[in-house]
Amino acid sequence: MNAPHHPPTLAAPAQLRPARRAASATSSIVREILKVALRPDMISLAGGLPAPETFPVEALRAAFDAELRDDGRAALQYSTTEGHAPLREWVAAQETARGVPTGADEVLIVAGSQQALDLLGKAFVEPQSPLLVESPTYLGALQAFNLFDPTYRALPTDDEGLQPDALDAAMARDARALYVMPNFQNPTGRTLSAARRATLAAAARRHDLWLIEDDPYGELWYRQAPPPGLRSYAPERTIRVCSFSKVLAPGLRLGFVIAPRAAIELLVRLKQATDLHTATLTQRAAHRVLASGLLEAHLPLVRARYAQQAEVMLEALATTMPEGVTWTRPDGGMFVWLTLPVGVDTLALLPRAIDRGVAFVPGAPFFADNAATNTLRLSFVTVPPEKIRAAVAVLGELIGHTLSKQKESR
Amino acid sequence: MNAPHHPPTLAAPAQLRPARRAASATSSIVREILKVALRPDMISLAGGLPAPETFPVEALRAAFDAELRDDGRAALQYSTTEGHAPLREWVAAQETARGVPTGADEVLIVAGSQQALDLLGKAFVEPQSPLLVESPTYLGALQAFNLFDPTYRALPTDDEGLQPDALDAAMARDARALYVMPNFQNPTGRTLSAARRATLAAAARRHDLWLIEDDPYGELWYRQAPPPGLRSYAPERTIRVCSFSKVLAPGLRLGFVIAPRAAIELLVRLKQATDLHTATLTQRAAHRVLASGLLEAHLPLVRARYAQQAEVMLEALATTMPEGVTWTRPDGGMFVWLTLPVGVDTLALLPRAIDRGVAFVPGAPFFADNAATNTLRLSFVTVPPEKIRAAVAVLGELIGHTLSKQKESR
Repeated sequence: MNAPHHPPTLAAPAQLRPARRAASATSSIVREILKVALRPDMISLAGGLPAPETFPVEALRAAFDAELRDDGRAALQYSTTEGHAPLREWVAAQETARGVPTGADEVLIVAGSQQALDLLGKAFVEPQSPLLVESPTYLGALQAFNLFDPTYRALPTDDEGLQPDALDAAMARDARALYVMPNFQNPTGRTLSAARRATLAAAARRHDLWLIEDDPYGELWYRQAPPPGLRSYAPERTIRVCSFSKVLAPGLRLGFVIAPRAAIELLVRLKQATDLHTATLTQRAAHRVLASGLLEAHLPLVRARYAQQAEVMLEALATTMPEGVTWTRPDGGMFVWLTLPVGVDTLALLPRAIDRGVAFVPGAPFFADNAATNTLRLSFVTVPPEKIRAAVAVLGELIGHTLSKQKESR
Repeated sequence: MNAPHHPPTLAAPAQLRPARRAASATSSIVREILKVALRPDMISLAGGLPAPETFPVEALRAAFDAELRDDGRAALQYSTTEGHAPLREWVAAQETARGVPTGADEVLIVAGSQQALDLLGKAFVEPQSPLLVESPTYLGALQAFNLFDPTYRALPTDDEGLQPDALDAAMARDARALYVMPNFQNPTGRTLSAARRATLAAAARRHDLWLIEDDPYGELWYRQAPPPGLRSYAPERTIRVCSFSKVLAPGLRLGFVIAPRAAIELLVRLKQATDLHTATLTQRAAHRVLASGLLEAHLPLVRARYAQQAEVMLEALATTMPEGVTWTRPDGGMFVWLTLPVGVDTLALLPRAIDRGVAFVPGAPFFADNAATNTLRLSFVTVPPEKIRAAVAVLGELIGHTLSKQKESR
């Protein structure tokens, strides 16, 4: 190959001088601590990974092979920013079947729902302008939006999810959008009640707000489907963000946005500047699997598995957690949220848990406003039942120990 | 599925109110005109698509199949933001073999090189801060950077590429980075000479600038490899952006960045907020194909094909272009750049060419500064030789006609 005519000159490393926005993307303490948690002997309740046993490997294998066999050149060529037309149509038909009439031109295919959040940050977040979120909210959304420098206003939540009555004129002033994860929220596992969805949609209309409805987990319900999406209440101002990560597989990096056409057109132009388009072959293979009706047989298996794992976790918590500790009881999804007595700092607890071979995620990073440092998130989907029980027992013991020391020092 | 309890209420469409940055992503006149050019009877010299006949379809088919067969669950699971470790190692080894010692931790895998430009915009472009580019420069880079609101300073170019002597203290003041495509540039097809690379690297050191070296076409040389990359002259301040789109296939959306570790670490954090990571399966399949040594046999075929296509285009131009029209003679890549006599507006020429069944891209959108409206870009790689000849003949005739009308009106 082309060897250089001289070896590169040695020089001092250049100074990085990143843009101010990039400073928000500094490495977090939590991320650094959790790197240690990758030890093979660790029981990690920290992950957000779906259970790989649920991936439809053989169906995808056949689909990738068929796409490359039947029309390989087209499957490997550049394609449109909007996404593979048959996949957009499949998404629109599915949404229509759920009661919200949707055209393919109201669908954008994205490289996973995290990319949708990046595009929405680009589309709607003016520097220092207000953006409404839940308290707590999805950490990955804060990371995506932070690059566009919003001023967060956080709406309080309880066991029914976000409290829409808090969305008054002062809260909404100058805001353009509200970001919410209504189903089995990450990190709390909570679901926004049907009554509150109606109230929230009405408030969004009153205050002329866009609703960014992030719904990666909606299909992962345990016993019954969650209430209809926000888009069914206010389709003219809801931008629905969905993912194939949990119903097919996350390593494909495939998701979609459903929104009014003007919003889709804006997002398409932003996506073109961002990455041209989502991988052609992946979209075609995913469409082939989806069009075959795989999900009808596949989703019940995924749901049953997740429900069972959740049950093990909830039983273990009931058995081993000391008095004063409370937790959510999710109806779907991948997470349980613990609230410890005030004064217990879960970030301080983490290194001690890791010493005992157990990892979790402290709750503070999920807050855009004042963090409740006595909270933590547990995930249960990739851990075998006996390890869930062992890990929760360790946590219970550590928390109990902390609480009795707290009592003593009073 | 979960039908809504009531049909969605009808409401007036919500007002979009996009952020100011999103306004830069408005649809361009050129894009609108070229939509018409998708007619099947059109000969499009407007495309930037690589020739699909060169895609290694069967090798990729075998690789995707093997990955899903051997370790399907891992291939479909989330993976690290940095990229698939063996693929990073392959890239580092290749770069090292070219004379620039490189570690895998100096490599980031991205979802195509357009994504690298988005991440670099996030990393380095402070609003209204100066960013140095070539005149003309790659349109897609302007689109990516525009979202971060730079003030462009454009360096003049000639047949040897960018003129590094223009990079004086005034030009460099407060700038952090210079974006340059040194090999077979899009849109001009020009290559930065070896002497100028050395001068440019020295100037970058003098003015403490980062060099963003965008090199999607470097492997597509016709007779001999281009001079060593800028990274071989100033590795401590060069961020090299490469793509697998032209050596494997663009529909995979796969590229990589090579840079000093501190820059890679910053880009990794930004990529995590942007899309978590690049598709796992795609990275693994690409690595399998690359590790098999495919490129050694494959690239000579691609180069020969592109060289032959370029020759047809250059011969056709020599045969049919009226006096006063000049064009570049690329040593690689996919593009020829035409300069018409001053006063001929190629944007006005485009609809007339389309009427005659021929599409091209007017040159103006490739300029960050004062556009030379008498320029245009022709691509030749996907068009059969007889159609290249026919299309260039039409263009020659239209331009000749315009020139004689121009003469008359004087």
